[in-house]
Amino acid sequence: MFDGFDPLDVVAPYEVLYAGGVASGGAVTVELVSAEGPREVISGTGGLALRAVGALDPERSDVVLVPGASGRVGEPGEVPEEEVGAGGREWRRDEFVPVLLGRTLTTELPALLTRAMDDPDVTVAAVCGGSLVLAMAGLLEGRHATTHHLGLDMLDATGAHAVRARVVDDGDLVTGAGVTSGLDLGLYLLERELGPRVAHAVEELFAHERRGTVWSARGPAPATL
Amino acid sequence: MFDGFDPLDVVAPYEVLYAGGVASGGAVTVELVSAEGPREVISGTGGLALRAVGALDPERSDVVLVPGASGRVGEPGEVPEEEVGAGGREWRRDEFVPVLLGRTLTTELPALLTRAMDDPDVTVAAVCGGSLVLAMAGLLEGRHATTHHLGLDMLDATGAHAVRARVVDDGDLVTGAGVTSGLDLGLYLLERELGPRVAHAVEELFAHERRGTVWSARGPAPATL
Repeated sequence: MFDGFDPLDVVAPYEVLYAGGVASGGAVTVELVSAEGPREVISGTGGLALRAVGALDPERSDVVLVPGASGRVGEPGEVPEEEVGAGGREWRRDEFVPVLLGRTLTTELPALLTRAMDDPDVTVAAVCGGSLVLAMAGLLEGRHATTHHLGLDMLDATGAHAVRARVVDDGDLVTGAGVTSGLDLGLYLLERELGPRVAHAVEELFAHERRGTVWSARGPAPATL
Repeated sequence: MFDGFDPLDVVAPYEVLYAGGVASGGAVTVELVSAEGPREVISGTGGLALRAVGALDPERSDVVLVPGASGRVGEPGEVPEEEVGAGGREWRRDEFVPVLLGRTLTTELPALLTRAMDDPDVTVAAVCGGSLVLAMAGLLEGRHATTHHLGLDMLDATGAHAVRARVVDDGDLVTGAGVTSGLDLGLYLLERELGPRVAHAVEELFAHERRGTVWSARGPAPATL
């Protein structure tokens, strides 16, 4: 988590993966972490905060999941009313999402995510604007990924191959689209790592059916329809 | 919120209604509250906590939303391994959901919810096991409501008319089914109070399409199909 994160981007996959841990007798454990270590992290939604219980440690993780930010989307050409100062963890109402995402570049997060991306034993996952955190850090060049539909052009502009799908599987990089696709992403990770029976049990418990095909660069490319 | 609440039951409608506030230029404001006032409230999922910023005050609210609990569902006949002591806010791993819900009866919550139900200007909403919190407090007798599919029989046994639907509208009582139907419930409340354009904008932003018919006791009763 980072300041300005989107609460649902975090809580939806957290709770899905946690339930997968219960359903699998403990094959999954989940922790909320930040680049800085244990601290209150303030979201971009109404000042709601979640506590990071530790520091992100790629070597200790099998999956590292990056959330997006929540705030204003803004109209084309609109500029922030206030100067964006560095640091300062107080919540400011309705900051612009790309500003919140870009601010992660001034933290330790890009270095930690680079280690995670370089480690063949770690799967990096991202929900919503989380893909843009990775992309702005220069980590998605040539990779297939998705993000919130409003961010697909920006993702493409970073050298990634942006795909419009709820979930995109690019091997050790698995990304989800807008906010609630974090549920689909969490369920897909459970299926991929633990199998369909655990994933289905959690899906039923949560009353959420995954939607859409998980896109992956396999099989013949489709002709234009 | 109460100790052992389900994080998604809270965060999903919170974020939907918050976005509805932004989309409507401030027609909605949302606050996380508890019966006891400002405090850290520990959920039933991995010790994740959210901060209540105030006390539930039915007279100050247009809508009061009650979440469910998260923990173990249990098999028929299974009994808890440990004695359930009173009080004590420390999180215990995987308590039984009905135990967590029942514990609210020893707090100020039932009295506050009774005031909310008695006030014609207040709509009471509940997600997942939240309906059972109301039902166990004796507040749903003769009312139409839904809850998590595993709790429908229990809801019926309290004298409520349990309906298997994602959202049930019984006038000043609007209830949602399992966990993620909190998204549908939040979007429906936005549509009912602010109209379909605001609800649709939030739905699109969140990449979640509401599913199913909102059940309500209007129109002819269907013949058996």
